[in-house]
Amino acid sequence: MRDIEAEEAGRRLWVNRKILEVMERYGFQLVEPSPIESLETLEAKCGPSIREEIYWFEDKARRKLGLRFDLTVGLARMVASRPDWATPLKLCALSNMWRYDEPQYGRYRCFYQWDAEIFGSPLPEADAEVIALSVDVLENLGLKDFEVRISNRRLVEAFLSQLGLENQEKREAVLRVIDKRGKLEENRFTQELENLNLAAEQRNRLLDFISIKKEPEAALAVLAETPWKSPEAERGLEELRRVVDSLKLLGKTAPCLLDMSVIRGIGYYDGVVFEIYDRMEAALGAVVGGGRYDGLCRVYGRDLPATGTAGGIERLLIALEKAGSIPSSTQAPQVFVAAATSEVRGKALELAGWLRAQGISVDYDLKNRPLKGQLEYADASGIPFALVVGPRELEKGLVRLRDLRKRMEAEVKIEEVPSKVSGVEG
Amino acid sequence: MRDIEAEEAGRRLWVNRKILEVMERYGFQLVEPSPIESLETLEAKCGPSIREEIYWFEDKARRKLGLRFDLTVGLARMVASRPDWATPLKLCALSNMWRYDEPQYGRYRCFYQWDAEIFGSPLPEADAEVIALSVDVLENLGLKDFEVRISNRRLVEAFLSQLGLENQEKREAVLRVIDKRGKLEENRFTQELENLNLAAEQRNRLLDFISIKKEPEAALAVLAETPWKSPEAERGLEELRRVVDSLKLLGKTAPCLLDMSVIRGIGYYDGVVFEIYDRMEAALGAVVGGGRYDGLCRVYGRDLPATGTAGGIERLLIALEKAGSIPSSTQAPQVFVAAATSEVRGKALELAGWLRAQGISVDYDLKNRPLKGQLEYADASGIPFALVVGPRELEKGLVRLRDLRKRMEAEVKIEEVPSKVSGVEG
Repeated sequence: MRDIEAEEAGRRLWVNRKILEVMERYGFQLVEPSPIESLETLEAKCGPSIREEIYWFEDKARRKLGLRFDLTVGLARMVASRPDWATPLKLCALSNMWRYDEPQYGRYRCFYQWDAEIFGSPLPEADAEVIALSVDVLENLGLKDFEVRISNRRLVEAFLSQLGLENQEKREAVLRVIDKRGKLEENRFTQELENLNLAAEQRNRLLDFISIKKEPEAALAVLAETPWKSPEAERGLEELRRVVDSLKLLGKTAPCLLDMSVIRGIGYYDGVVFEIYDRMEAALGAVVGGGRYDGLCRVYGRDLPATGTAGGIERLLIALEKAGSIPSSTQAPQVFVAAATSEVRGKALELAGWLRAQGISVDYDLKNRPLKGQLEYADASGIPFALVVGPRELEKGLVRLRDLRKRMEAEVKIEEVPSKVSGVEG
Repeated sequence: MRDIEAEEAGRRLWVNRKILEVMERYGFQLVEPSPIESLETLEAKCGPSIREEIYWFEDKARRKLGLRFDLTVGLARMVASRPDWATPLKLCALSNMWRYDEPQYGRYRCFYQWDAEIFGSPLPEADAEVIALSVDVLENLGLKDFEVRISNRRLVEAFLSQLGLENQEKREAVLRVIDKRGKLEENRFTQELENLNLAAEQRNRLLDFISIKKEPEAALAVLAETPWKSPEAERGLEELRRVVDSLKLLGKTAPCLLDMSVIRGIGYYDGVVFEIYDRMEAALGAVVGGGRYDGLCRVYGRDLPATGTAGGIERLLIALEKAGSIPSSTQAPQVFVAAATSEVRGKALELAGWLRAQGISVDYDLKNRPLKGQLEYADASGIPFALVVGPRELEKGLVRLRDLRKRMEAEVKIEEVPSKVSGVEG
């Protein structure tokens, strides 16, 4: 349980708006899948072990229900149930979800994600589209130093087959080891591969392969040198080529690398996959991740290729704070209308209502405090301007306008107040 | 379980922004209390019977938890736990919550509310502030024909005491009958009062009292004629007077009535209460409601007067749709960039990226469709403009701009596209 307090809520509002802006620009339509799903639907993505990691319960009719742990499941289930919707469908969502695991750095039990998915396009151009969107989302938020690591599970699996790992289960075990490589010491990594009966030569070739991490063209050149032996491998390589071509045309290659060590959700992703890391905050883990999952919608009853991207808002907030890109404005109102004496309280209220009608954010005393107390409260609340309504000034159609940060005060005509206090950063 | 699809999500986005705008203008700060509360916290507001109406479960540590059923509980619990926060505190929230009851007209198991609360002000001016905010929220959304029914529980309870109902339990029983009066036939209502041993004269006087429903000044005049006998009654009347005075100064009395039949949450509200009804859609029930609840924060450990207002987004959407005040724009992108031949697909992509960089919402083909299929898809998706990129036009620096609604087409210079397609309502 965690409350989001005003300062953080203000930052989130800014972040959410920036993300929604980009998703709209890319033609994604915002939806909100149900926050409660049947447990069966949730298990279909990740297997029954997911029960251990989510909030689930039986309802009064003994149906097993669970709180969603991501937005992709709901989006896929939603689209699968609507065969009348034309494809490709570009849907996005930004909402809260729950995981019942131990909170980690930048990870909470109730957390928010943004998510954008394309349903119904089998083309690598669609993968490029979600990667380009992700890059634009981060750029629009003012993040500058990040890298997009792109791989293709089809190509990586074809490489493992070519390495002699014919058995699917064994390939998945190896993928799992590669996936956690970042967290393992080098010799532990070798050890785990040995445990899976990989010979020294296999291990070395594998290590060479997953060490490919280069700018797209350079990486494609290296990958092209490998004597690929299967149509799956050729297809995987071709998909990467087309992703790179599209990203180039969309002007989004600058932060991109091909990185053959990127794995992500095993038994779920089946094509292009990618992760985005903040170079300044790599310990955070990926701030965005996604890829192609052509198999998932089939589980929900509709055979529909799909690719998507998602990012956690909490991690993003950490990265953005370190980068200093979130404007520091608080949610404090712009003006506090203070009454110098009790006779003019009514006039202060009237003035507050009038300023609000001009679209200005206004607060006033709700505690019957003397003027000094009113101004102290306004100052402590971070309100930049106070308007002091006094009986003598009122007679002349004036009020005192006090700039609480600059500690300056001037008499101004009432009708000039809106222009004096608006347009100034709060 | 209910998904919010794109069209509705678009309307909600508009509605939410309009509400947030007004809450900001009134100096309320947005926060988000935890969606999961301990069951104890939830029960503190409404009693243990609330268990039957909410989603609750035990977590792995056997703690009893529940999903929030409103935002007030979380806000009050949040504020009570932070004695370091200066008051008055004006907090607001807009988020989802859950009730496990039978869905009704305009009411769902997972639903959204906006909520604004003032903590730390005992003054009727604070009650007026949340009423004025509510009026402005509805006006900002374009709702025109609504009425605000204001009462004061302190005054109503004082009236009941004066009527001879000295017993608190009995007074609450009578309040409960008044509360459901709208749903009862007239003779059934009389019957229920008889069952509570109210004599004919008591019933008649009560009926006269709760039938007071007039414009504020007229109602205050009628109420002033009653020979009040307790300081509580005088205080309740004075509170109503000050609420009316404040609303007048804030320019918000027009839709307001004093209505002594308004009751709301028994054992929870203890001062001014109000409800707002859409006159065109009275069957919806109140679209906004609120009041003073000085006792609640004490339950959470901090003695803090409080008053607030909240409204359900789902009911509001129904009212706004009937009123026709939500702009009909869809979430469809503004432009579809179509490629006339496969050689110019790259150019189409480049153009799409360039237009997006100008802030324009753009989509393009992700299915390798021929031109005709691309244009049909754009049209079916409600996209207003198609840009047809063809090899011959490209040589001259031109593209064909097709207005899909007016069925008109013209050749335009590429650099002129942004100005031609933006600023036109999508």
